[in-house]
Amino acid sequence: MTKILIVGGVAGGASAAARARRLSEDAEIVMFERGPHVSFANCGLPYHIGGEIQDRGKLLLQTPESFLARFNVDARVMNEVISVDRSNKSVTVKNVLDGSEYTESYDFLLLSPGASPVVPPIPGIDNPLTHSLRNIPDMDKILNVLKTKQVTHATVVGGGFIGLEMMEAFHALGIQTSLIEMADQVMTPVDREMAGFVHAEIKQKGIDLQLGVALEAIEYQPHKDNENLLLSLNNGQQLETDLLIMAIGVRPETNLAVQAGLELGPLGGIKTNDMMQTSDPSIFAVGDAIEEKDFVTGAQTLVPLAGPANRQGRMAADNMLGRSETYQGTQGTAICKVFELAIASTGKNEKQLKRDGVDYEKVYVHTASHASYYPGAEIVSFKMLFDPKSGKILGAQAVGKDGIDKRIDVMAVAQRAGMTVEQLQHLELTYAPPFGSAKDVINQAAFVANNLIKGDATAIHYDEITNLTDDQILLDVRNPGELQSVGYLKGAINIPVDQLRQRMEELPKDKEIIIYCQVGLRGNVAYRQLVNNGYKAKNLIGGYRTYLYAQA
Amino acid sequence: MTKILIVGGVAGGASAAARARRLSEDAEIVMFERGPHVSFANCGLPYHIGGEIQDRGKLLLQTPESFLARFNVDARVMNEVISVDRSNKSVTVKNVLDGSEYTESYDFLLLSPGASPVVPPIPGIDNPLTHSLRNIPDMDKILNVLKTKQVTHATVVGGGFIGLEMMEAFHALGIQTSLIEMADQVMTPVDREMAGFVHAEIKQKGIDLQLGVALEAIEYQPHKDNENLLLSLNNGQQLETDLLIMAIGVRPETNLAVQAGLELGPLGGIKTNDMMQTSDPSIFAVGDAIEEKDFVTGAQTLVPLAGPANRQGRMAADNMLGRSETYQGTQGTAICKVFELAIASTGKNEKQLKRDGVDYEKVYVHTASHASYYPGAEIVSFKMLFDPKSGKILGAQAVGKDGIDKRIDVMAVAQRAGMTVEQLQHLELTYAPPFGSAKDVINQAAFVANNLIKGDATAIHYDEITNLTDDQILLDVRNPGELQSVGYLKGAINIPVDQLRQRMEELPKDKEIIIYCQVGLRGNVAYRQLVNNGYKAKNLIGGYRTYLYAQA
Repeated sequence: MTKILIVGGVAGGASAAARARRLSEDAEIVMFERGPHVSFANCGLPYHIGGEIQDRGKLLLQTPESFLARFNVDARVMNEVISVDRSNKSVTVKNVLDGSEYTESYDFLLLSPGASPVVPPIPGIDNPLTHSLRNIPDMDKILNVLKTKQVTHATVVGGGFIGLEMMEAFHALGIQTSLIEMADQVMTPVDREMAGFVHAEIKQKGIDLQLGVALEAIEYQPHKDNENLLLSLNNGQQLETDLLIMAIGVRPETNLAVQAGLELGPLGGIKTNDMMQTSDPSIFAVGDAIEEKDFVTGAQTLVPLAGPANRQGRMAADNMLGRSETYQGTQGTAICKVFELAIASTGKNEKQLKRDGVDYEKVYVHTASHASYYPGAEIVSFKMLFDPKSGKILGAQAVGKDGIDKRIDVMAVAQRAGMTVEQLQHLELTYAPPFGSAKDVINQAAFVANNLIKGDATAIHYDEITNLTDDQILLDVRNPGELQSVGYLKGAINIPVDQLRQRMEELPKDKEIIIYCQVGLRGNVAYRQLVNNGYKAKNLIGGYRTYLYAQA
Repeated sequence: MTKILIVGGVAGGASAAARARRLSEDAEIVMFERGPHVSFANCGLPYHIGGEIQDRGKLLLQTPESFLARFNVDARVMNEVISVDRSNKSVTVKNVLDGSEYTESYDFLLLSPGASPVVPPIPGIDNPLTHSLRNIPDMDKILNVLKTKQVTHATVVGGGFIGLEMMEAFHALGIQTSLIEMADQVMTPVDREMAGFVHAEIKQKGIDLQLGVALEAIEYQPHKDNENLLLSLNNGQQLETDLLIMAIGVRPETNLAVQAGLELGPLGGIKTNDMMQTSDPSIFAVGDAIEEKDFVTGAQTLVPLAGPANRQGRMAADNMLGRSETYQGTQGTAICKVFELAIASTGKNEKQLKRDGVDYEKVYVHTASHASYYPGAEIVSFKMLFDPKSGKILGAQAVGKDGIDKRIDVMAVAQRAGMTVEQLQHLELTYAPPFGSAKDVINQAAFVANNLIKGDATAIHYDEITNLTDDQILLDVRNPGELQSVGYLKGAINIPVDQLRQRMEELPKDKEIIIYCQVGLRGNVAYRQLVNNGYKAKNLIGGYRTYLYAQA
């Protein structure tokens, strides 16, 4: 009889417990959770605070009783594993309620402790109005502040998933909200110019968005009738707020692993092999606490996401019970709802590729989520990164109001399958007017990428068009009305694409024509006309729209 | 200077013209369209009739003027190419307006004539109230009937894309509608049991759905104040209707190809090689008129869909202008909106696999389109067909109210990339509560499929559970309340899964236990318990829900 102990009852831990029982009826399975809840919906916490998920009970996916009844798993809440004795293959467990301790032996131990919010050592941070959000007790504390205090202004520090979701929750509750982010963008999995679409949305909703700003000090002000906080920012500004959420990131929870003498990886997560085994073959680890292999680069990475955690948990159970399943690496596919928008990505972003010195090219397309003549079509703004020689997909990002998850899912599959951008041209995706287009966003991006690879197009990018030389001139091929309504680049000549054949002689042949339109499509038509007529030209990939939102 | 003539200005033809111009500024490009419109949105026609697309102008994507201005393409509407003289490389064109004829020479000819509605030789079919829907003049005729007659009842014959869309259009207009389909299901790209979900939706909306019924005769009744039709069906029923739409299918339009002596394929479409070249190397053909290679089987297939037509058109232009692009085969990825539902598929269906004698296994899952605790989640009913030995993906089908296009797109990419169901387990798809689940529908289907392949599960399917032997017994592991509300299979013992460990001895060890639950998930938990305790068992894949809708 195999005895399996599991530390942590969310995502990876719960998946492992259920899978282990399905594989073996006689294994003894004990799951420890130091908090009061097993298997709660941690991704749903901000949405309960904001009121979108009304029923708190919906967040409690399992109880110790339900785990026992269905899976014969002994789930012990309020029980914290405080040390591991590897030589005796046992753990010491503390009953959090009465402080008593006991030991429990194991054949296999699974560590699934998750990651904990990073709380920086900011003066004054320890006060009753400052909270992180990791679990249901954290959520209840925040709800309690909202219920018992008069919260008219809230501040969120950190523009990642939880920060953005909390910002939206406060907005939904009618609370004035500031979002403070030290970087020059929110949602770091995407690149700066794609985050611009999100910045525009956030500001449009009336959020006080402060980018490139850090919180330096917090002063708790215990007014008689309504206590609050005075925040000092590194731009000299001071901000009074009633509730502060710290959401600057998480770090792998490795205390137990360190105490047990297990190896950590270079990024500070628990080191595992591709069978989810730690440096001790009897101890497995999964989820936010571990380092894993990046699917694209093969390097170590920390990806605190629920999808990988769940699959790793299942796999660890397989391997503890004698199978041999290997983890295939993490792409980091991620998505976040920000008000009306979704923003998503998979694979590597441009910042990472630059940092790693990887050779890459990129394309942008902005095109309708479904047939534009059918009601409800929204623009999908899509960025694709690829190897300019092999066409290998390096990463993809998308933002918009409709069909964002779908496009990034398509890219996540294509990348995992090792497809090239050449092959993406041939993808045969669902099309009917309410759902897509005969040439989908992905097909179109692939066409643009292949034009670049084959030399049928010469790219210039949004961050290059403001530094033109004397040998280059700007040509705007949109209609004059568009220039007026949307804006344009200073110094551009305007010849609408449909007049270009007639007016081509207005352009100099000894200069390089830098063409742009709204999204890059008409620019490409103009580019081909000019080049086929002996001009030198480049086309702004993704057009004025990419340039515009990069500033947002 | 290359001279290219294009026959047909929709989808493939228009794509080819635009691409050819982008590749060559000096090619002469003439596009002939015998109707009054080039490049109209043929997929949008039913939605304009139903009123969802209000503005008729939105259907007219291009005009001869816009084609000329942007692409320098001489688009000649009301000009029909009536014969091809291959030896002289010229065509004879008839001006439809004045009946005059002229010839035009070519270096390359592209045939993109599309497919025409099949109109069966039913007595009385030639009457002013019976129409097909292929183009804008057809649409206008139907709109004219709706405008000038009192249409209180309409009948659609044929349950394919156009038939279903026209049914929905009539319903949207408040018209009582009958849908007559000769087969036992609508939407033949999917299998019968998946179509059941659509049948339920159609009936729920109050449509008179008649499956397995054929139209035998039509009698035009010229009443003084309101003419109508008397339809005789092969089930003996007679039906009075004010408007009849024939939508039983299309056949490749090959008159011109036949006249020119070009080879046809075994299915009656124009034969092309993978460069879109017909048996005459100067003549290319694309779109609904041609036969193409099935991506999965490599056999010839007819797939009248817009996506392939567009990509083939682009590719034909490439190849006419000296490139060497090859078409990679058609999966037949398709989707249709039917009221609140979407139904979609890619690859081969079970009917085709059976017919072709291909060895296959299948799984069904019914699971939430996104985290079930977040508002708006809807059940995705998903079927996956795969090779039971290699795990190769053979096809996929999905139906539901949310996220259907996404799941079939994922499967279309995975299939095209040659992935196996083993690899689908590892897919890392976008997850946040509003968009997906940590274990997506596709991951879950892959888990079930791999359980079957590895022998961790033994399947029984919905069409086998009504023919049990004396050595088998039925076990329903749902809660008693579910049996009451949803229904159950006669003769089943009911032991809820969470009581199974305690009550296992109620079950006989000498019989095979046929387990079912609502969707197959609890059934799998029960299966593992029983098998690991020495019982013989099978689990109904997809559960009672699959069985139930297969009857609809």
